[in-house]
Amino acid sequence: MKLFSSVHDVTDINALVAEALKLKQDPYAHQHLGKNKTLGLVFLNPSLRTRMSTQKAGLNLGMNVMVLNIDKEGWALELQDGAIMNGTTVEHIREAAAVMGQYADIIGVRSFPGLKDREEDYSEAIFNKFVKFCGVPVVSLESATRHPLQSLADLVTIQELKTTARPKVVLTWAPHIKALPQAVPNSFAEWMCKADVDFTIAHPEGYALSSDFTSGATITHNQDEALKDADFIYVKNWSAYEPYGQITGGNEDWMLTNEKLAPTNNAKVMHCLPVRRNLELSDEILDGPNSIVVHEAGNRVWAAQAVLKQMLESL
Amino acid sequence: MKLFSSVHDVTDINALVAEALKLKQDPYAHQHLGKNKTLGLVFLNPSLRTRMSTQKAGLNLGMNVMVLNIDKEGWALELQDGAIMNGTTVEHIREAAAVMGQYADIIGVRSFPGLKDREEDYSEAIFNKFVKFCGVPVVSLESATRHPLQSLADLVTIQELKTTARPKVVLTWAPHIKALPQAVPNSFAEWMCKADVDFTIAHPEGYALSSDFTSGATITHNQDEALKDADFIYVKNWSAYEPYGQITGGNEDWMLTNEKLAPTNNAKVMHCLPVRRNLELSDEILDGPNSIVVHEAGNRVWAAQAVLKQMLESL
Amino acid sequence: MKLFSSVHDVTDINALVAEALKLKQDPYAHQHLGKNKTLGLVFLNPSLRTRMSTQKAGLNLGMNVMVLNIDKEGWALELQDGAIMNGTTVEHIREAAAVMGQYADIIGVRSFPGLKDREEDYSEAIFNKFVKFCGVPVVSLESATRHPLQSLADLVTIQELKTTARPKVVLTWAPHIKALPQAVPNSFAEWMCKADVDFTIAHPEGYALSSDFTSGATITHNQDEALKDADFIYVKNWSAYEPYGQITGGNEDWMLTNEKLAPTNNAKVMHCLPVRRNLELSDEILDGPNSIVVHEAGNRVWAAQAVLKQMLESL
Repeated sequence: MKLFSSVHDVTDINALVAEALKLKQDPYAHQHLGKNKTLGLVFLNPSLRTRMSTQKAGLNLGMNVMVLNIDKEGWALELQDGAIMNGTTVEHIREAAAVMGQYADIIGVRSFPGLKDREEDYSEAIFNKFVKFCGVPVVSLESATRHPLQSLADLVTIQELKTTARPKVVLTWAPHIKALPQAVPNSFAEWMCKADVDFTIAHPEGYALSSDFTSGATITHNQDEALKDADFIYVKNWSAYEPYGQITGGNEDWMLTNEKLAPTNNAKVMHCLPVRRNLELSDEILDGPNSIVVHEAGNRVWAAQAVLKQMLESL
Repeated sequence: MKLFSSVHDVTDINALVAEALKLKQDPYAHQHLGKNKTLGLVFLNPSLRTRMSTQKAGLNLGMNVMVLNIDKEGWALELQDGAIMNGTTVEHIREAAAVMGQYADIIGVRSFPGLKDREEDYSEAIFNKFVKFCGVPVVSLESATRHPLQSLADLVTIQELKTTARPKVVLTWAPHIKALPQAVPNSFAEWMCKADVDFTIAHPEGYALSSDFTSGATITHNQDEALKDADFIYVKNWSAYEPYGQITGGNEDWMLTNEKLAPTNNAKVMHCLPVRRNLELSDEILDGPNSIVVHEAGNRVWAAQAVLKQMLESL
Repeated sequence: MKLFSSVHDVTDINALVAEALKLKQDPYAHQHLGKNKTLGLVFLNPSLRTRMSTQKAGLNLGMNVMVLNIDKEGWALELQDGAIMNGTTVEHIREAAAVMGQYADIIGVRSFPGLKDREEDYSEAIFNKFVKFCGVPVVSLESATRHPLQSLADLVTIQELKTTARPKVVLTWAPHIKALPQAVPNSFAEWMCKADVDFTIAHPEGYALSSDFTSGATITHNQDEALKDADFIYVKNWSAYEPYGQITGGNEDWMLTNEKLAPTNNAKVMHCLPVRRNLELSDEILDGPNSIVVHEAGNRVWAAQAVLKQMLESL
């Protein structure tokens, strides 16, 4: 594998999930693969789970890992081609990416969307420029429109904990006070649409995701109906795709509570984290027996390790 | 050892000191213990010595070490239970700690007190929540009321350099312009009260430490008297315990000088660092032959390594 | 080697360049040298290339590497001797350096000049205090007046890519909007003056470098004349040495373009990076076949590794 930016970069998602679960059983079996190989993790935005789990995945594979918070530790990046750089940006992404490709065998990049210009965000300009100019395999650590390591860990978790052959998985919108990216729900949706699950998306009117990611899903504005018989509930806020990046307020009753779990099949509750308690998800859910959010976060290691292993094998 | 938060977590302090001094002679003898084990160091506040010495201690033991400046690189933490997180905090300590416990075999945490609410600080709410929710052994990298790795290194230093069986050790308050925590003096006091030393605390009126930490010590407001025949002088500023977190100004004459060393037993001068020169401690002391502050800082490695070794043995 | 602060610390620059090129062919041949040795990289300023390449060089040699952004992660440093530290600085460089020397076998330090006080900057006060007080070998990661790892990588690159025995190398000033240090051009000049090259410096009036660094070079204000028959062109902005740290504006026509390459010997274009596109260097140069800036940045690894190897051998 030379690129891991979306589900479309994966030939066989079931095989990748199986690989991750196998690595979970035997994490250190492949340390020869990463010997004297360097993983460079580049952050343009904050990160806890992605940072630590991907770092650990690389170390488990015997790699050296170098972490760079580029805007804080390095130089302010220019992203526009043709720019006359007489302002505040000090280094163009073309040079920054190319140089990092000299120092790392595999690069991971995190860059969030601006949520101002949909076309720009959905063109994945920053992430794609990194890929184009760094010259080495790249793994997305969350880009403007997708978070594929998260989605793979989510699918690993569902595969690991499901009790029926084809579970019902519901992605439900949750309230928030800030405009958040669509990256996690987009990505989760496109992975679930390819997985062997019965997949439903529930959200208030005005929060439809781009159909590029949701083709094949059942979509409803009725949360109660969606949750009926659910085996897994994936809770996540996102801002509107149209009008882009907007939030309307209201819809506080979309926060998941124990009461809403009643008609489910004793559903396991997932969230990518960080989660705002008692806004997106109630304390009673997060501290109760149905939450698997910490277990899910733990699986981030094996998802990252499966991807890095395939990349190392292709070097 | 599953927890290192205070002297009370140590069964035999003399044995732990001996272990540290043995590791100093042979630092790399136990690298099998840490192989494929991960040490996660989490900072909510600045750190130089603790950061570098604990990182080095983990590496000496063959561990992988991941460092996270959580508020700068991760997400702003919510600490209050039951909070409706519709403000500036993005992640609750419950999730943050639990998730880090998925990625690390041992976690170190640094979190300073607010110095506003004594009950809250002395309940060690942040540190204890980390311990409660992360699910793996935790070592304090300085908490609101204690700095046990520092105190252990201090005792190691005294044991290593003492010239009499039972040295006289004096903790003396020093001037400062800011209100500092009581963590270092509290911690030093409770370790010294358990060690085989003659222990005196000297401070101006108004700076009494909590008796929970000083039981067994001689306490005086007369610095000259305290210093008489001292073998080791531990210099440190702290703010008042009552009224909590206050500083009164004045007492500049409490700064240690060479003149004040005259009646001592050619005392060795200690400080946890960082030290404000010519405010807490004079240049002449720090640059003179009696200062052992750098040697003391060097011993931080062996203190941390002794604790981590015992934790690794208990995994 | 105990110190790498300038070309004057190198006994035989040709041997050092040869060593770097040999390491490039066989990067992992000396991992026994760095086993259980610690490289401490201390940054008082931003860094991308130096940070990553030196970190990688240490890892290639089997070292443990600890990185500290001291002002952000540690404590605000006091630099003045005799200071009464009752202001904003928390730790004196004397203690900070000495303590880091307890934790690292080799230390790298980056500290930029203030560009206010020439005498202070050119005394290399910060860097020299680190060297004096840390007690272990020190490698400059760019100091107030020099950037020797960059210059060594530059010479490695010229040696590697030259097509004539004694190439013509031109250092040409480039436009900028900010006052930049003279460290890179000073350092490049003093290395080129010692290397087996024909060396010319071109700059507008008012931007003469200190003659301490340029003795032996041909110096001109005529860029066109300088570029004639050039084999390598090193592009770099710097502020005035006299009046110190000033920039006058204008001179935009000094930006290198393809047109200016015509009279050269199909010159290879170098820059230390970061580079401001279309201000210092045109897109057409950077994206064209003559630019070797990324290759040059890649050679930073081997330059650093050659220096660290010699330091490890002298421990």
